[in-house]
Amino acid sequence: MEKPWEGRFKEKTEELVERFTQSVSFDKRLALHDIQQSLAHVKALKSSGVLSEEEERVISSGLQRVKEDVEKGTMEFAKELEDVHMNIERALIEKVGDVGGKVHTGRSRNDQVATDERLYIKEEIEKLQRELKELRRALVSLAERTLDVIAPSYTHLQRAQPISLAHYFLAYREAFLMDSMRLSNAHRIADSLPLGSGASAGVDFPIDRFQVAESLGFRSVLRNSLYATAERDFILDVLYACAVCGVHLSRLSEDLILWSSEEFGFVSLPDRLCTGSSIMPQKKNPDVLELVRAKTGRLYGNMIALFTVLKGLPYAYNRDLQEDKEPLFDSLDTLRDSIAVMKLVLEGLSVNEERMFSCAGGFALATDLANYLVLKGMPFRQAHKVVGSLVGYLVEKRKKLEEVSLEELKHFSELFDEDALKLLDPRIVADRRKTYGGTAREQVLLQIENAKREEGMP
Amino acid sequence: MEKPWEGRFKEKTEELVERFTQSVSFDKRLALHDIQQSLAHVKALKSSGVLSEEEERVISSGLQRVKEDVEKGTMEFAKELEDVHMNIERALIEKVGDVGGKVHTGRSRNDQVATDERLYIKEEIEKLQRELKELRRALVSLAERTLDVIAPSYTHLQRAQPISLAHYFLAYREAFLMDSMRLSNAHRIADSLPLGSGASAGVDFPIDRFQVAESLGFRSVLRNSLYATAERDFILDVLYACAVCGVHLSRLSEDLILWSSEEFGFVSLPDRLCTGSSIMPQKKNPDVLELVRAKTGRLYGNMIALFTVLKGLPYAYNRDLQEDKEPLFDSLDTLRDSIAVMKLVLEGLSVNEERMFSCAGGFALATDLANYLVLKGMPFRQAHKVVGSLVGYLVEKRKKLEEVSLEELKHFSELFDEDALKLLDPRIVADRRKTYGGTAREQVLLQIENAKREEGMP
Amino acid sequence: MEKPWEGRFKEKTEELVERFTQSVSFDKRLALHDIQQSLAHVKALKSSGVLSEEEERVISSGLQRVKEDVEKGTMEFAKELEDVHMNIERALIEKVGDVGGKVHTGRSRNDQVATDERLYIKEEIEKLQRELKELRRALVSLAERTLDVIAPSYTHLQRAQPISLAHYFLAYREAFLMDSMRLSNAHRIADSLPLGSGASAGVDFPIDRFQVAESLGFRSVLRNSLYATAERDFILDVLYACAVCGVHLSRLSEDLILWSSEEFGFVSLPDRLCTGSSIMPQKKNPDVLELVRAKTGRLYGNMIALFTVLKGLPYAYNRDLQEDKEPLFDSLDTLRDSIAVMKLVLEGLSVNEERMFSCAGGFALATDLANYLVLKGMPFRQAHKVVGSLVGYLVEKRKKLEEVSLEELKHFSELFDEDALKLLDPRIVADRRKTYGGTAREQVLLQIENAKREEGMP
Amino acid sequence: MEKPWEGRFKEKTEELVERFTQSVSFDKRLALHDIQQSLAHVKALKSSGVLSEEEERVISSGLQRVKEDVEKGTMEFAKELEDVHMNIERALIEKVGDVGGKVHTGRSRNDQVATDERLYIKEEIEKLQRELKELRRALVSLAERTLDVIAPSYTHLQRAQPISLAHYFLAYREAFLMDSMRLSNAHRIADSLPLGSGASAGVDFPIDRFQVAESLGFRSVLRNSLYATAERDFILDVLYACAVCGVHLSRLSEDLILWSSEEFGFVSLPDRLCTGSSIMPQKKNPDVLELVRAKTGRLYGNMIALFTVLKGLPYAYNRDLQEDKEPLFDSLDTLRDSIAVMKLVLEGLSVNEERMFSCAGGFALATDLANYLVLKGMPFRQAHKVVGSLVGYLVEKRKKLEEVSLEELKHFSELFDEDALKLLDPRIVADRRKTYGGTAREQVLLQIENAKREEGMP
Repeated sequence: MEKPWEGRFKEKTEELVERFTQSVSFDKRLALHDIQQSLAHVKALKSSGVLSEEEERVISSGLQRVKEDVEKGTMEFAKELEDVHMNIERALIEKVGDVGGKVHTGRSRNDQVATDERLYIKEEIEKLQRELKELRRALVSLAERTLDVIAPSYTHLQRAQPISLAHYFLAYREAFLMDSMRLSNAHRIADSLPLGSGASAGVDFPIDRFQVAESLGFRSVLRNSLYATAERDFILDVLYACAVCGVHLSRLSEDLILWSSEEFGFVSLPDRLCTGSSIMPQKKNPDVLELVRAKTGRLYGNMIALFTVLKGLPYAYNRDLQEDKEPLFDSLDTLRDSIAVMKLVLEGLSVNEERMFSCAGGFALATDLANYLVLKGMPFRQAHKVVGSLVGYLVEKRKKLEEVSLEELKHFSELFDEDALKLLDPRIVADRRKTYGGTAREQVLLQIENAKREEGMP
Repeated sequence: MEKPWEGRFKEKTEELVERFTQSVSFDKRLALHDIQQSLAHVKALKSSGVLSEEEERVISSGLQRVKEDVEKGTMEFAKELEDVHMNIERALIEKVGDVGGKVHTGRSRNDQVATDERLYIKEEIEKLQRELKELRRALVSLAERTLDVIAPSYTHLQRAQPISLAHYFLAYREAFLMDSMRLSNAHRIADSLPLGSGASAGVDFPIDRFQVAESLGFRSVLRNSLYATAERDFILDVLYACAVCGVHLSRLSEDLILWSSEEFGFVSLPDRLCTGSSIMPQKKNPDVLELVRAKTGRLYGNMIALFTVLKGLPYAYNRDLQEDKEPLFDSLDTLRDSIAVMKLVLEGLSVNEERMFSCAGGFALATDLANYLVLKGMPFRQAHKVVGSLVGYLVEKRKKLEEVSLEELKHFSELFDEDALKLLDPRIVADRRKTYGGTAREQVLLQIENAKREEGMP
Repeated sequence: MEKPWEGRFKEKTEELVERFTQSVSFDKRLALHDIQQSLAHVKALKSSGVLSEEEERVISSGLQRVKEDVEKGTMEFAKELEDVHMNIERALIEKVGDVGGKVHTGRSRNDQVATDERLYIKEEIEKLQRELKELRRALVSLAERTLDVIAPSYTHLQRAQPISLAHYFLAYREAFLMDSMRLSNAHRIADSLPLGSGASAGVDFPIDRFQVAESLGFRSVLRNSLYATAERDFILDVLYACAVCGVHLSRLSEDLILWSSEEFGFVSLPDRLCTGSSIMPQKKNPDVLELVRAKTGRLYGNMIALFTVLKGLPYAYNRDLQEDKEPLFDSLDTLRDSIAVMKLVLEGLSVNEERMFSCAGGFALATDLANYLVLKGMPFRQAHKVVGSLVGYLVEKRKKLEEVSLEELKHFSELFDEDALKLLDPRIVADRRKTYGGTAREQVLLQIENAKREEGMP
Repeated sequence: MEKPWEGRFKEKTEELVERFTQSVSFDKRLALHDIQQSLAHVKALKSSGVLSEEEERVISSGLQRVKEDVEKGTMEFAKELEDVHMNIERALIEKVGDVGGKVHTGRSRNDQVATDERLYIKEEIEKLQRELKELRRALVSLAERTLDVIAPSYTHLQRAQPISLAHYFLAYREAFLMDSMRLSNAHRIADSLPLGSGASAGVDFPIDRFQVAESLGFRSVLRNSLYATAERDFILDVLYACAVCGVHLSRLSEDLILWSSEEFGFVSLPDRLCTGSSIMPQKKNPDVLELVRAKTGRLYGNMIALFTVLKGLPYAYNRDLQEDKEPLFDSLDTLRDSIAVMKLVLEGLSVNEERMFSCAGGFALATDLANYLVLKGMPFRQAHKVVGSLVGYLVEKRKKLEEVSLEELKHFSELFDEDALKLLDPRIVADRRKTYGGTAREQVLLQIENAKREEGMP
């Protein structure tokens, strides 16, 4: 097959080079976006008089037919034609004859591919945002279900303080909300039109780029043709937003894996989400969570891959930029699946309330004893020491905090009174953290209502 | 020195452990922010009646005195006290007596450190934004100076098309403008108050977190105490924004290093920005640019370091999070210096206009010849082939494109006429790219005026 | 299709979960290694009396038939069966009946996959070593061709000192030789048998692991079943060795891209290795080199992906480890292709000797003038200053170093004599660097002979 | 202060540039290695007649005096002198006068710094190897102590099979042994002399590099001056080996953090290795382990930093390479401390044997029941299903596996007999895994003896 640029060349391209440099095996994913932009482009060429009405009509209808082939899966992509752009141009020419070649007037693959990518990213982020919203809704539903489940919070993986389990799920909702903000930021940065920048210097046909932007749905037009064709920072933004969301998913996975262990015994997953062992008949493993956790690896890897490509690359376009696509596609796919899987997990999660409650008491109540003394006038540092000694004493006696007597308390400080013993109930203690954002029932309820409103839940 | 948590412990901390776990050697950088938050905190404690007016007065004036010590550099930080928070509390107690211990009422180091970090980040980003603006102004000034300098643009490091050199500098201004957006995004995410979240579950003293937010200048209050103490995603945002800005700086550096080579000979740096060789007396090396380029490494490294720390970390606070600070400090310092250095370089840059002009012609004019044929009705693909063959012919004849005769042109296509020869002037060719964002003089001028207005330049 | 572990499960696996957790779409690449190990495994089971001779015969011949299907490409892999191991076991059972199920006796997928991977890695590294040797031979051949080509060496991308161009190519041969060492190290670490470790604790059938190691060609047997199934450090070694080789390829690419620019004009690539522009008819771009340079990105990304997966993962096997394969396959493929492409480039490279020579002179000769003064007794630091001033003077006068007169030299130091002028020839200067490893002709020749012997070249 | 290369410069270096480019603030760490190489260098200069005996004597004794200043900490390093090399040269000249300037004859900072770094790396790796051996010995001692402690092994963080706890510790010994191999590989690659390569092209003084190598203790001499000065791949090797060791430390930390949780309750750390909470008096947190786990972040970050610096860097020396030192120093320091801390932890670890034993039974014994059926002739896949159903039945009945009756067993398969009930003891089951590398007592004992011999333990 003939190359679009063979005029100046004397030798046929080496087969390995052809295979090594082709991108169509993966950039064919952009086929529909490429056709979409071509349709807008030829409309603009017509408006500016570069194409006649008739030419535009013929090319557009040809593009529509190529689009149908792509959608039906009957379009054949040839590696000899390097990339999706040349494949579609060739398919167009096959359908409408030489006039099809006019589609590339006033355009280079350099501005073309950047335009495809930005269209693709905008669409994919919009999809991801919907998935993320579903995930957050699952968290809010779980929070509603678990408002009155008392669980331990952990710091240093040691039991810290009793909380409402709902409070825990709402924390992750905040995290995924921030991820939505990051994706929105990436979307906004991608939402500018490169087309009309040519190979690097702009275009010498009188194309109205604002018209093109409008028909493609871009909010603005990139103001510099070199920047428009040389940069991939807008893809970094996507890879980064995916990676941070991956961090959050990996942490939630880790928690749920821990909680699924026999030792914690806090939650269990339904059979339909688990897999077994080929050798140990008893096993029911939370593999999906382990894979969600592990997929952070590829999200980081994809990001660092593109960062590496871009480091120290001279302006403007270089072929290196072709290495941007596979990481982009992979991160978006990976994240979408991970979110969907996590949503299934949350929806199917069974919580062992008794077990959680029984772990929420004990020394996790110590802070409140110290604060009790503070409210009686003891400086905090001293109160901390007093209760620390009390804890040390009980550890030695192998007694739980709930088993302490008033007498023993008074031995450590005369300020302790009968009402101190009331603090030895996790539910009461959790309920005392009434500051905004705290785990007191009323505060958690407020945040649930808040969240339902924000997520458009009934 | 006594630890603030020794009550429950029977053994002295191992010396290596003390050294390994301390953070004061680097987090002392947050001392002023820590004092700032303590002042707001005690005010809130007073409002809610936890501290008396007198106590608040005494503590606040003590904090002011500690602040003076920090500012004067006379504050001594002890590793045995682990971190900046405990050091400052101890200093306070030394100044005002036991009542100083009340400063930690209703607060944990977990929400405290997150608050310090957010205060620090906001301040640092504001500084960086000013530096970035200076850098962009330097680019705009350079663009003004070089509006009429014709230079080659490059793709694949091969000469592509003639451009106004100003167009090149404006491209980077766009890049750095996007970086400002990223920093603003990071700022907005950091601009929420964690204080009042306690160790993880919230606080059981009636503190008005909105009052605290207002006195510290936070735009909002974090709505979940677990999220507030467990997360460092807001630091990732900073490290990321720095890394992308580093990408842009590394690319600009690479270009300028290339352009400073004898082979390109496009620009030169003043002696005051260069360094020499200890062995080769002739050398005047653009070391600063090489270092700017190389510092991308630490910006990526710092980012990947924190990403690694956070992967799979269970909720909520873990000591792992302490590893967030050194990367943060280093990325901010590195980027600030790199920007300042780049600004110096741009201000001192000498441009060799003749050399640039002489490289902007030749085959870089070929696209326009093809477009000439297109405007005469030839489909673009065919025009591309015709001019490609012409180029092949001239390469063989060792002739420049400017040296072609009308006769020779006609040999390749009858459509060529006298006026085609006018296209063989880089200045004319550059001026033909008149679409918005193109390199035509009028377009570049428009963007310069645009930029001056946006950057507040006279 | 029935799962191999369904006994304990009550619900059918969710479809998304099945898709998310399957690995056969990529681990089918290990099919032949999996069969190879099964053949060795059943032999060992027979030796230890777990399988009868007849059973072993039947299973082995069944495996041979599955192997043929795989080799012919007629084997069908089903995602419902999760991975390559279960697919092959199922295919075996279809061929030989229920007895096929005995192949999994005394084995878990945990030790099985680790064995497949180690077999695969050993084979792939051996292939890579052959490719690398070819690349080094291409460098040595180039060195032979260019022994008498005088070129500038660069430091800081400024011309430094004249060298034999052969010396440059030999430098990269050293680099790729070190990469071979790294690959050998990775091979040696992979060359130990995990099979016989079961799911984590070892096997309770009396299998002779040393016999298995011998029949599979492993040099040793892993000594701890937990380590054998929990670790992927041996894959990190491969990813790392690939990444470092990628560094070297990216640097060589960068040099050749620079040298291919019109500004340097040192080398050119044949048409068959270049690609053109869809819009600029004159372009002949070194895309293959840009892609080799860019592929460093995925090599780093793959490595960081697995590093991320492994960070903080509890012992022993976790499903996270499944994420090791795609990076491994991709890095090996990428590196092999990049090496092959680079070899083609080197073989096709044309060198512009005159251009190189003309850049090797000038101020690049200054060091030798300084050393001249040193040999006349001036301390080096002072000589450096004298020649530095001389260079400054000539730069101002716009004179080349070769154009200096003895009079002018004497103006800077009385120690200069007639013979100093002889130092103003790049060839002579290059030839003066006679220490071992230097660029003097005799030294370079010695290293070429050395290299030819080591690489087994005639 | 005067720069060593000022001859050619007309302007004073800008202060920011001076600060930005200086490296002495961190490379002063190489001061002793720099002096060591200078001593060897001047000896070689004397041998070759470049320096007189007297000159060599004066310079060497001057260097000895500088060395004393460095060792006593009285040497003052000035940033204006850029780096450690120039600082030491200046100090030398101050001590012995202008003749000191001759130390730089036949040497450039390019080969000098590479030599310092290789000397430093060799020394540091040797230290690290000793620390790693200590860590492995601590593991072996622990293994000896815990040979008869039965613990659960985990896969997917679900209990898998009973093992000897010693087996677990020996697994990590294997991991750290592999790390020693990686460090040895890095050492071997570093063990070659760059000195004598000059700035890039070699040296024109007749220096015997083999003599220098011998006096500095290098095993060989680098054979190409460009390679010797342009490369930092040997530093990547160190950063990589540190990072992999960090992986192992992070996994061991993770396990011990899990095991220290109240939920697992397997181990506890002594007070002297723990830290407390500023607000929760009960807390005794395994902070050191969390920090060891987190420090993986900087080990990865340092590695990726240098990988980034090197990507696409043209040959030979560029100032970018200066960015190699801080990551190198930091990774070596970090790893050394982490290893030392981990050793303390292992030595201080208390194991709760009863708790571990009680978790080692139950369904973790199911594999052996399946294998029992296999030995009675049932194909493995069928046996797996039978026992899987049995487990499902017991889960529903909320019975442990140990509580199953022979009758119930027979209900699932008639092949079960009285002796099957003996398999319901974790100790017996662990002891059945007698293949080499398995967890049977005799095998573990064999490996302990093996390990003691290899580690030189009594």
